[in-house]
Amino acid sequence: MSRWLPAWLAGYRRDWLGGDVSAALVVTLLLIPQGLAYALLAGLPAQTGLYASVVPLFIYALVGKSHAQSVGPMAVTSLLTAATLARLAPAGPADTLALAAWLALLSGAMLVLLGALRFGFLADFLSAPVLAGFTSASALLIVLSQLVPLAGGHGGGSTLTTLLPALWRAFASARPVALAFGLATLAWLWLARRYLAGALIRCGVAASLARLAAKAAPVLAVLGAMLAVPVLQLTHDLPLVGAVPAGLPQPHWPALAARLPELVLPAFFIALVNYVQSLSVVQWLAAQRGEPVDPDRELLALGLCNVGAGLFTGLPVTGGLSRSVINAEAGAQTQLASLITAGLMLVVMVWASAALAWLPLSVLAATIVIAVGSMVDFAALRRAWRVDRADAAGFIATFVAVLLLGVDTGIVAGVLLSLGSWLARAGRPHIVELGRLPGSEHFRNVRRYSVETRPQVVVVRVDESLFFANARRVEEALWARLAERPHARRLVLVMSAVNRVDATALAMLERLDTALAAHGVELSLAEVKGPVLAVLERGGLAARFAGRLHLTTLQAWRAGHVEAGDYVI
Amino acid sequence: MSRWLPAWLAGYRRDWLGGDVSAALVVTLLLIPQGLAYALLAGLPAQTGLYASVVPLFIYALVGKSHAQSVGPMAVTSLLTAATLARLAPAGPADTLALAAWLALLSGAMLVLLGALRFGFLADFLSAPVLAGFTSASALLIVLSQLVPLAGGHGGGSTLTTLLPALWRAFASARPVALAFGLATLAWLWLARRYLAGALIRCGVAASLARLAAKAAPVLAVLGAMLAVPVLQLTHDLPLVGAVPAGLPQPHWPALAARLPELVLPAFFIALVNYVQSLSVVQWLAAQRGEPVDPDRELLALGLCNVGAGLFTGLPVTGGLSRSVINAEAGAQTQLASLITAGLMLVVMVWASAALAWLPLSVLAATIVIAVGSMVDFAALRRAWRVDRADAAGFIATFVAVLLLGVDTGIVAGVLLSLGSWLARAGRPHIVELGRLPGSEHFRNVRRYSVETRPQVVVVRVDESLFFANARRVEEALWARLAERPHARRLVLVMSAVNRVDATALAMLERLDTALAAHGVELSLAEVKGPVLAVLERGGLAARFAGRLHLTTLQAWRAGHVEAGDYVI
Repeated sequence: MSRWLPAWLAGYRRDWLGGDVSAALVVTLLLIPQGLAYALLAGLPAQTGLYASVVPLFIYALVGKSHAQSVGPMAVTSLLTAATLARLAPAGPADTLALAAWLALLSGAMLVLLGALRFGFLADFLSAPVLAGFTSASALLIVLSQLVPLAGGHGGGSTLTTLLPALWRAFASARPVALAFGLATLAWLWLARRYLAGALIRCGVAASLARLAAKAAPVLAVLGAMLAVPVLQLTHDLPLVGAVPAGLPQPHWPALAARLPELVLPAFFIALVNYVQSLSVVQWLAAQRGEPVDPDRELLALGLCNVGAGLFTGLPVTGGLSRSVINAEAGAQTQLASLITAGLMLVVMVWASAALAWLPLSVLAATIVIAVGSMVDFAALRRAWRVDRADAAGFIATFVAVLLLGVDTGIVAGVLLSLGSWLARAGRPHIVELGRLPGSEHFRNVRRYSVETRPQVVVVRVDESLFFANARRVEEALWARLAERPHARRLVLVMSAVNRVDATALAMLERLDTALAAHGVELSLAEVKGPVLAVLERGGLAARFAGRLHLTTLQAWRAGHVEAGDYVI
Repeated sequence: MSRWLPAWLAGYRRDWLGGDVSAALVVTLLLIPQGLAYALLAGLPAQTGLYASVVPLFIYALVGKSHAQSVGPMAVTSLLTAATLARLAPAGPADTLALAAWLALLSGAMLVLLGALRFGFLADFLSAPVLAGFTSASALLIVLSQLVPLAGGHGGGSTLTTLLPALWRAFASARPVALAFGLATLAWLWLARRYLAGALIRCGVAASLARLAAKAAPVLAVLGAMLAVPVLQLTHDLPLVGAVPAGLPQPHWPALAARLPELVLPAFFIALVNYVQSLSVVQWLAAQRGEPVDPDRELLALGLCNVGAGLFTGLPVTGGLSRSVINAEAGAQTQLASLITAGLMLVVMVWASAALAWLPLSVLAATIVIAVGSMVDFAALRRAWRVDRADAAGFIATFVAVLLLGVDTGIVAGVLLSLGSWLARAGRPHIVELGRLPGSEHFRNVRRYSVETRPQVVVVRVDESLFFANARRVEEALWARLAERPHARRLVLVMSAVNRVDATALAMLERLDTALAAHGVELSLAEVKGPVLAVLERGGLAARFAGRLHLTTLQAWRAGHVEAGDYVI
């Protein structure tokens, strides 16, 4: 029987229970406002965020491997969903709900499929600077979009060009009560983040508890507002969340959208971004405990979570770093914390949803602004700039593309740019001519060291694997070196930095060898690595180069030419 | 004054003239049927091919660097043009002409722009197997599409699914006279290719002249047919080229197609394919003479050729291997051969175009079938399969995609697949644990050699540059090695095969170092290359790893641990 239980449950220890229960309480308090707010951000009714919170928590606890991962609605995912829904221009509210649910279902199914195909490595195609540029620009868009409900307005957009006019309109006709609630919440959250933990510690509260309390500050804002609105009778000219239906919907296939094919590409990008986000959370959590990560299993778990969210009229979900970190810090020992959170969410939805009706939208907007604002991270750009201009260009291009073209186009531009710039650099490899450090076995760059050379022999090292993106340039560079050395009768290619070769590079070597031979120059290879030698053998080049494949550069350098004092190998 | 002349003209030697004139004669005889046939293949009136032949020859001679490059209409380019035109569904013949001219203009302008931006390296993103798969499938499509006019039919398609039914219809209602002309031409060309040169040599003709005559066999077929049709009065039920307007059109901007934005993407792919084709021809020609190639200059020249073709109501053009080789073999010494060819073409168009009206379409179709048939090259697939399964998969995927989805979608699929598969492999680098060959400075794979290891030290070499596509996997692999070696207190990363690092990899190294330190394991780096060290310094890691950056693996291995007999470094 225990074979069918998740490993954490089969080996559960009673002393873990306290931590799991307290973590569940804290996360529930955080998840309620986040669920509501991220659903509104996606352009969906608030309760959708609650629906999308419960089922994924259950599913991840049973399938996922990370003890503290907290799957549910997240800011960037909701922004992507909003952008997709805006582009699809749904016919009405029912259509919007069905399209959002289909996005979750489709992206979930894709993640499950990718997991089954062991395509976990796909997440690696997003480089760190591109991801940072994407996250920063998305966070900036989210902050701007939330300033509209903060001022009591509605509407907005998913790019800078549509957001700025909406923002202008919202503040030109701001509703005073809504704006007051919003600004008060902003101020409280900012102060709480800055001073609350310190103040509580000075009052004698334990440091860990104080830090948790500071992180639960949004819940206090939400509870305070929900109390103030009915008590002070502030419902006039104040947009509220409104009636939230009690209970959980029955699972069902969303209405079959005739426009399903249009959803495929957006669903793929949502799946990719969700997976990258979720995996980075799992890696962070695993690193804390020194545990391994199974990317393919995480693909499967996140995929099933999204399928579950979709079946319960939800929206795409992923693992969020902030919530998962709070889960871990609040004591989560196993996935039981998530199971309890899911149970508590159910309780809230069945018995407490009526109270949520009094929640001002501007308060929710303020909690998002504070939660997301810190994600704008220009430090990553500074780091990338110092390390590598191409990486910095990747950040900037992705940042600008997301702001101006939208999150979905932006992420595609970023990925293509990372791949392209890496290949472009691999296409211009570092190529140096070598000479022998007198009397030694070592060969070094002729331009940097005082080395020995021979007029008949040109020794060249290529610092890159040889493949289609650089084969032509390497060939040209070798001809250029030879043109400078008219007496050369042998060209030695030092392959110590060549980790791989492909068919294009093999064809180049063959062509080069033939052309060099026609010019009376012999091509020799030195220090060929095992895997490269295997490819040369399979391609028939090992036979062609028989007698011209040398273990060391020195051997290649003096092949057929014995100097006084040299020993013959 | 001579500053403004092309280099070849400024330094022209009189003894080159004979070769240039004879080459021009041969190429003109070849270019007339090819120009007509490739225009028809593109779905355009036959004379368009002649218009597109003259101006590009002039332009290339003045701007291009290759002595024997022959720019003009080519088979694959015409197929791409046909596919684009079919997709755009032009309103009528005038619209078709304008769209084709705009394709030439736009792709030409793009090439000029890419040349100005020094983007010549773009051609390298097409790997040899993908290019071979693309060319083979295109050639197969072309052969199939030409079997329709060979049987006297018309119409067709640009993918296998539309071509096969058209072929069935054409042969079900084949026109006997057309088919007879077509089959006779096929037979003559096949026999000529196989036996004509040998037969002529046996008759005492000089070998070089005999080989040229064999290659000019299509011209004899065309001349014979043009004579036979009027003499034998065979015009009934035989589709002919028909009236070809005499003379060259005036240059003018083609009617401004309102659908220009739709042309941008197809024009880009046509530009890319044309450039790759043209550059490979130039490289082949340059290699014969041991001359250098300037890819950016070739971009400029080909771009201007296409702009010229577009202004003269033409279609996209490129350098064709077969025609250029014949140009070189017939004696072309300089670009003067192309200038003379252009002049001869003008003469033909002004005074001999009437004769072309008698040319049966099935004869032209047969010349294309023979010219293009040999481009189906499965030997490239066999080679790729032996060398590298991923390369073979690239060939097959491109081949299938071109056949089923069309030439334009196929080439995109192929490029993305090459890039993706190379990165996927860079994402799974070869990682080996090393031990010391007893008593030496050399470290080798512990699984292959009998080497010395120390329980406290794990030495690992990664055979790949560290970057976003593999940073996570390398990190995981290092943790996995450490998990197998619980007593390890130092992890030595041998960087001899790491040619480059990016910001993502730097972040990984920092994260790994912090996490390892928390586990009581020290991370050391050995054999870091100059360019990589520079990046570490710019990223602030050189300071962090101060005292843990070792020149040699041996130093890293015994840092802080002096063995009996070891000397301290």
